[in-house]
Amino acid sequence: MSKMKLYDFPKAPNPRRVKIFAHEKNIELELVNCDIANREHKTPEFIKKNPSGKIPVLELDNGECISESVAICRYLEYLKPEPNLFGSSAYEIAVIESRNRHIEFELWTQIGISWVNGSIVGSLGLFDQIPDAKVASDKNVMSFYQRLDHEFNSNHFVAGERFTIADITLISAIDFASEMVELKPEEDLKNLHRWRNEVSSRPSMKIE
Amino acid sequence: MSKMKLYDFPKAPNPRRVKIFAHEKNIELELVNCDIANREHKTPEFIKKNPSGKIPVLELDNGECISESVAICRYLEYLKPEPNLFGSSAYEIAVIESRNRHIEFELWTQIGISWVNGSIVGSLGLFDQIPDAKVASDKNVMSFYQRLDHEFNSNHFVAGERFTIADITLISAIDFASEMVELKPEEDLKNLHRWRNEVSSRPSMKIE
Repeated sequence: MSKMKLYDFPKAPNPRRVKIFAHEKNIELELVNCDIANREHKTPEFIKKNPSGKIPVLELDNGECISESVAICRYLEYLKPEPNLFGSSAYEIAVIESRNRHIEFELWTQIGISWVNGSIVGSLGLFDQIPDAKVASDKNVMSFYQRLDHEFNSNHFVAGERFTIADITLISAIDFASEMVELKPEEDLKNLHRWRNEVSSRPSMKIE
Repeated sequence: MSKMKLYDFPKAPNPRRVKIFAHEKNIELELVNCDIANREHKTPEFIKKNPSGKIPVLELDNGECISESVAICRYLEYLKPEPNLFGSSAYEIAVIESRNRHIEFELWTQIGISWVNGSIVGSLGLFDQIPDAKVASDKNVMSFYQRLDHEFNSNHFVAGERFTIADITLISAIDFASEMVELKPEEDLKNLHRWRNEVSSRPSMKIE
């Protein structure tokens, strides 16, 4: 069987989630560069692969495409169930999904708002920027970091006592926010930094 | 076994998703009113059930709680696998997840922005409203309806040829947007209306 193709771009945070996940599973993917800097993800050809015009996209041998990082990860989990990253019992599956969604809907979405309304992409003129929206989302991000710090006081990982997809979602969010959006967690959030240092030491995390 | 408790509020769209899902599965839940109009979801007692301070929350017999509508639905799917609403094969599971996420991240989030920045909740003074954000999100919602209309030209349901969780996500989004946020799909989106009429005729959809 040939390797599945992953449409990717270096340092883009959502493809990174899939690459980390695949590394944790020891699954090799063929990386195909989708030049988002030159808007390749918005071309008619790419829109056929993903009507949302986003990366990552996983392309199977038969040409079928799967978009959305979590959907791709679920596909990989089904192909190779171990090590389990989405949960085993009904309750564990639900808790991991719940925690993953907390990170996505309350942290990732806010980082995204700060990103599109911030100065780095602002110069490209792709978005009608709303500075007030960034003020609010910056505040929401910093406040969510505090909530996480509190939660890491009793939880070793995002969804409890073991590493799961929810940790991959969080580390890619915090790394992107820290490096590209100037939203670093405050130094005094010791529990959050303990978690971040521990997770960052995994071999899969070297992937950009 | 006693019935599981669902913290709910009439007409709130996310609890409605779970109630529709449970009805489709023929699972009975004990509905517990969480008075969000009086901010009961933000009380310290409720925050223990869901640190995000949102409904729905499913409370199990042992007192454990699960938040996030899709996480609750996954739990119910595990308890009662048929009728299947999340997919069976690896590819089907991935496509349903992908489509559900398209609706959540590209439509639901935009409806939410229009809602918190709109006039109905504006009078409550709970949010620092950003009118420009609503202008942008209103436009994104109407444009996503057009994309859906195009997709329903070849897909009978949101994720292909059968009814799934992705249809529940979309119908609750469109019903909420139409009734509470004044964002109705344009009359000429015939494929979208064909789908909406068909899905709305299911007995589970009578639930508010």
